[in-house]
Amino acid sequence: MSELNMSREITQLRLYVFILITLIKCFQDVHVMIFVGFGFLMTFLKRYSFGAVGFNFLIAAFGLQWALLMQGWFHSLDYTDGKIKIGVENLINADFCVAGCLIAYGAVLGKVSPVQLLVLTLFGITLFAVEEYIILNLIHARDAGGSMVIHMFGAYYGLAISWMLYRPNLDQSSRLQGSVYHSDVFAMIGTLFLWMFWPSFNSAITDHGDGQHRAAINTYLALSSTVLTTVAVSSLFQKHGKLDMVHIQNSTLAGGVAVGTAAEFMLMPYGSLIVGFCCGIISTLGYIYLTPFMEKHLKIQDTCGIHNLHALPGFIGGIVGAITAAAASESVYGTEGLVNTFDFEGEFKDMKPTRQGGHQAAGMCVAICFGIGGGILVGCILRLPIWGDPADDNCFDDEAYWEVPEDEESIPPILQYNNHMRNKDVTESNFTVEQN
Amino acid sequence: MSELNMSREITQLRLYVFILITLIKCFQDVHVMIFVGFGFLMTFLKRYSFGAVGFNFLIAAFGLQWALLMQGWFHSLDYTDGKIKIGVENLINADFCVAGCLIAYGAVLGKVSPVQLLVLTLFGITLFAVEEYIILNLIHARDAGGSMVIHMFGAYYGLAISWMLYRPNLDQSSRLQGSVYHSDVFAMIGTLFLWMFWPSFNSAITDHGDGQHRAAINTYLALSSTVLTTVAVSSLFQKHGKLDMVHIQNSTLAGGVAVGTAAEFMLMPYGSLIVGFCCGIISTLGYIYLTPFMEKHLKIQDTCGIHNLHALPGFIGGIVGAITAAAASESVYGTEGLVNTFDFEGEFKDMKPTRQGGHQAAGMCVAICFGIGGGILVGCILRLPIWGDPADDNCFDDEAYWEVPEDEESIPPILQYNNHMRNKDVTESNFTVEQN
Amino acid sequence: MSELNMSREITQLRLYVFILITLIKCFQDVHVMIFVGFGFLMTFLKRYSFGAVGFNFLIAAFGLQWALLMQGWFHSLDYTDGKIKIGVENLINADFCVAGCLIAYGAVLGKVSPVQLLVLTLFGITLFAVEEYIILNLIHARDAGGSMVIHMFGAYYGLAISWMLYRPNLDQSSRLQGSVYHSDVFAMIGTLFLWMFWPSFNSAITDHGDGQHRAAINTYLALSSTVLTTVAVSSLFQKHGKLDMVHIQNSTLAGGVAVGTAAEFMLMPYGSLIVGFCCGIISTLGYIYLTPFMEKHLKIQDTCGIHNLHALPGFIGGIVGAITAAAASESVYGTEGLVNTFDFEGEFKDMKPTRQGGHQAAGMCVAICFGIGGGILVGCILRLPIWGDPADDNCFDDEAYWEVPEDEESIPPILQYNNHMRNKDVTESNFTVEQN
Repeated sequence: MSELNMSREITQLRLYVFILITLIKCFQDVHVMIFVGFGFLMTFLKRYSFGAVGFNFLIAAFGLQWALLMQGWFHSLDYTDGKIKIGVENLINADFCVAGCLIAYGAVLGKVSPVQLLVLTLFGITLFAVEEYIILNLIHARDAGGSMVIHMFGAYYGLAISWMLYRPNLDQSSRLQGSVYHSDVFAMIGTLFLWMFWPSFNSAITDHGDGQHRAAINTYLALSSTVLTTVAVSSLFQKHGKLDMVHIQNSTLAGGVAVGTAAEFMLMPYGSLIVGFCCGIISTLGYIYLTPFMEKHLKIQDTCGIHNLHALPGFIGGIVGAITAAAASESVYGTEGLVNTFDFEGEFKDMKPTRQGGHQAAGMCVAICFGIGGGILVGCILRLPIWGDPADDNCFDDEAYWEVPEDEESIPPILQYNNHMRNKDVTESNFTVEQN
Repeated sequence: MSELNMSREITQLRLYVFILITLIKCFQDVHVMIFVGFGFLMTFLKRYSFGAVGFNFLIAAFGLQWALLMQGWFHSLDYTDGKIKIGVENLINADFCVAGCLIAYGAVLGKVSPVQLLVLTLFGITLFAVEEYIILNLIHARDAGGSMVIHMFGAYYGLAISWMLYRPNLDQSSRLQGSVYHSDVFAMIGTLFLWMFWPSFNSAITDHGDGQHRAAINTYLALSSTVLTTVAVSSLFQKHGKLDMVHIQNSTLAGGVAVGTAAEFMLMPYGSLIVGFCCGIISTLGYIYLTPFMEKHLKIQDTCGIHNLHALPGFIGGIVGAITAAAASESVYGTEGLVNTFDFEGEFKDMKPTRQGGHQAAGMCVAICFGIGGGILVGCILRLPIWGDPADDNCFDDEAYWEVPEDEESIPPILQYNNHMRNKDVTESNFTVEQN
Repeated sequence: MSELNMSREITQLRLYVFILITLIKCFQDVHVMIFVGFGFLMTFLKRYSFGAVGFNFLIAAFGLQWALLMQGWFHSLDYTDGKIKIGVENLINADFCVAGCLIAYGAVLGKVSPVQLLVLTLFGITLFAVEEYIILNLIHARDAGGSMVIHMFGAYYGLAISWMLYRPNLDQSSRLQGSVYHSDVFAMIGTLFLWMFWPSFNSAITDHGDGQHRAAINTYLALSSTVLTTVAVSSLFQKHGKLDMVHIQNSTLAGGVAVGTAAEFMLMPYGSLIVGFCCGIISTLGYIYLTPFMEKHLKIQDTCGIHNLHALPGFIGGIVGAITAAAASESVYGTEGLVNTFDFEGEFKDMKPTRQGGHQAAGMCVAICFGIGGGILVGCILRLPIWGDPADDNCFDDEAYWEVPEDEESIPPILQYNNHMRNKDVTESNFTVEQN
């Protein structure tokens, strides 16, 4: 081995180490986001915490296995021995697949049975794998943090399913569709773990040292500024200037979604801050005005408000990504940097940044189409009268699927499960006074 | 230095880095499991959350120091200067020692005083150190994730103590021996942190890159499949098909225990999935049928059901490990791989995999003997009338050892502490109705 | 490149890797401490959990950005292009800046408005940056874990503000200034995450492999022994020998504060254990005797008892650091070790350890002066009648600034905001009986 080779080898080792570290670290961080972050974020409902954290656990564990299989089959042609290889990259990718389905779960939280959730996940993972392949490989869009691939797809998938499963008699002011004091604190556990580890999420699959570093710091900055505008807008638009926990729990994360695509690009710190700033405003206003509007006029009942946390910021993220890509130039990235960042290699060797911007936009369209189309399809399946979904009166109630401890203010066990979506007359004598 | 040496050094550095990363990462993960995982897993009781998380904290902090000292003394002969060296491996080992005692705490949760817990820990760590030395060094069994060394030992140790401290008048349907809604959600924090970081636990002390990778992925897969079967069995065997939080909190972790020994071997992904699959079933059925049986007929009161989460899966893990070891061959592992994986070096240079299987089985027997024997011994000591354990009526009640805030549904302060195990007549006028 | 160079390069790479790992790992750990640790530690109040975790989130997100800017301006002279560079070291430093302000928040928890908190943070970060520069660069004191720079400064800053904002009519036995059962369990989440990750906090900015290792292990040992003495003292000094959750939540962390300065020095394991041992006693006794004394006689209302968790242990830490530094010698550290550990380079090339001890002590004085002086200054500003701080009757009540879910034992909405510090007559008809 010559000295030159040796020296090169050391440089490579340096890079290898950096990637290894971040892969291992990012994997664990993303894993925490999936199980603790998403799980606890949804515990805010007063009597659906078991369902939130428990079914989240179920979906994630099921989805991981299915995603590993799907990935294996997709890439099985690469190997000659017909075996599926599993490494830490596959585990991260599986977590990403699952994230899309968990986002969708947010829209139908409390209104579906665990069996329906498994069906939602089964199809969701499959659709995700195809959609991801089209966007990243065929269209050659870049999407490190999955603004389009994960967030937009997941959100529209969930919203379309929610639209298909519309429950006209689900009283909007249902006694169970709110939080209690401690359930809101539990939800903050989810918020904080998502918030803290989001930089790892957005930088996990960018495989070059520089891009990874950039992705983490851009995300960090965007998230910081989102918190401030969320608090400001929440206070300004609520009566008496009080803050609303729903906004703090959700909108503070919108910045992370919105820099997902552009995080690995040269978005620059001030760019990240501006994106986060805008997203905090838009997401919070979405919770105040858009969610009630969608429920009333569009027949979309969005329990967790994923439209404001994932769909809208994902949309912004896609646009920001397209613009940042189109504006890229060799003077900023350097020749090698440009090729590395946008992967202008092989078939796409002669790609220009401006065209890349167009491809990014095309990726967004694919994500929306797959989300809405897939959601309507799966919604049709979930309307079949065989899944044991709860009656309107038992929505948002753990009593329907869990053994709930008795000694607290308990809900009378008049449970009804639907055999079809049209709801029969449901007894409404639910408020029997309890004696402690 | 020749070029060959240089090249070798770079390869070594590559390995060194991998080990360093995983040691540091695994240490922190195991640490989180010990303090947050075990601590919160036991908070499910309605009025014993302080004791669960607080005494867990106390035991762990005490145990760590004692374990570091024990390790130092055990290895003090290796050093000439008589000093105890402390490095990150020692800290991981100390966490492992403590894990055994925390498992044992699960069996006696709510029925012992903090002083009894310190005694339990003091002897537990000491027994663990001897037992570990015999199993790993003398018998030369391999046990990366501690299915035998940690889980079986800890569980039988705790169960034997619980048997010695049997309380005949501890009403099985005691008003405090259940959960409330939010205490079950707290317990899920423990479950999830244990579940997510279990791959680090099982791979922490496997010191070769490949084995570590393998251990983490096998554990991950086993845990995933356990979740599915746990949910299925819980739903199938409960009245009305409802899920039981106790199963979700505990049985979902059984797969991690059961692949502990075999995780670093060539168990193969499908092997891990099958082990996890079976363990989910066995552990959940254990909670439904075995725990009540043991309490009624064997006089073993097992508060957390550690028999189903640690003893049974640990037993399965030991068997699976023995079979996997016996089935090992050079064609699968490669010559070097076989030597590295099973450490066929020095005194055990001529060991054959089939014989290794026998040694694994012998290790299991030692773990059981130490657990039961040690538990009976320590149980005798804990029956001495000097430890201030709570009367039957004050079991599962934080009021006995903690200043509890008053404003919630409070428990009347008729506290009695035992001076001996035979309980005197205890006033039972505990149910004074409270007015809020 | 010669072989010697190559060999040196490999050694350097080894060090680089270690630093890289620990920087990335420590950053994430410190980040978790800031958001989850500090946030949940303060949730113990029965009706101020939203404020605790939510305003902690707000302050931290705001402070991070401000701290990044401040750092950039401070170091802008180093760069020729006028741009602010952001790397992972800056993010860690920003977290450290924020930590000081969050400590200060502990003293005024529940008694100030979010706007006041933002002002507190704005000035706190600025003062911190100047104070840190003086202590570390001009005085050349060493303070890896920030016993002086972070903890003493933050604590005295908060206490001075609390003294300026003294509320004479804040009834000491206010119905809201206590915990409920589950709020205490939430606070334990904060305690445990702080406790587990404290070794990373103290070792994050020590940039040499050895010192970092040493800092982590010393902190680990000190924390372990603190837990034991805290439990012992809490039990001994309370009526009926019961443990107090306040001590377990707070005093168990005092050891980490107290070894902050000396952690990277050759404190030796037994030294750490002794420091932790003493701090557990002093901190717990502080909660029992000192906090009531200060509230009664010194007009300092310290909601979280930061005097006992940060000021006192920080003071001890400063002293221990000065003594350990003064006692340093080449025979223990080695010539190179001494220079590396104490950074005896450049302007301070001829520094002697004994003199370094004096500089350490000088650093303490600067920290106290900045804390108290800055606190009085900012306290004056916060007394201006424009910040919308809550009336005495609405202190410790989320109702003042948050939309609180209604269905729990609710507090009547007679809210008053102060326009000046002198409180007008406040209606006290607060105890309307609720019917569930």
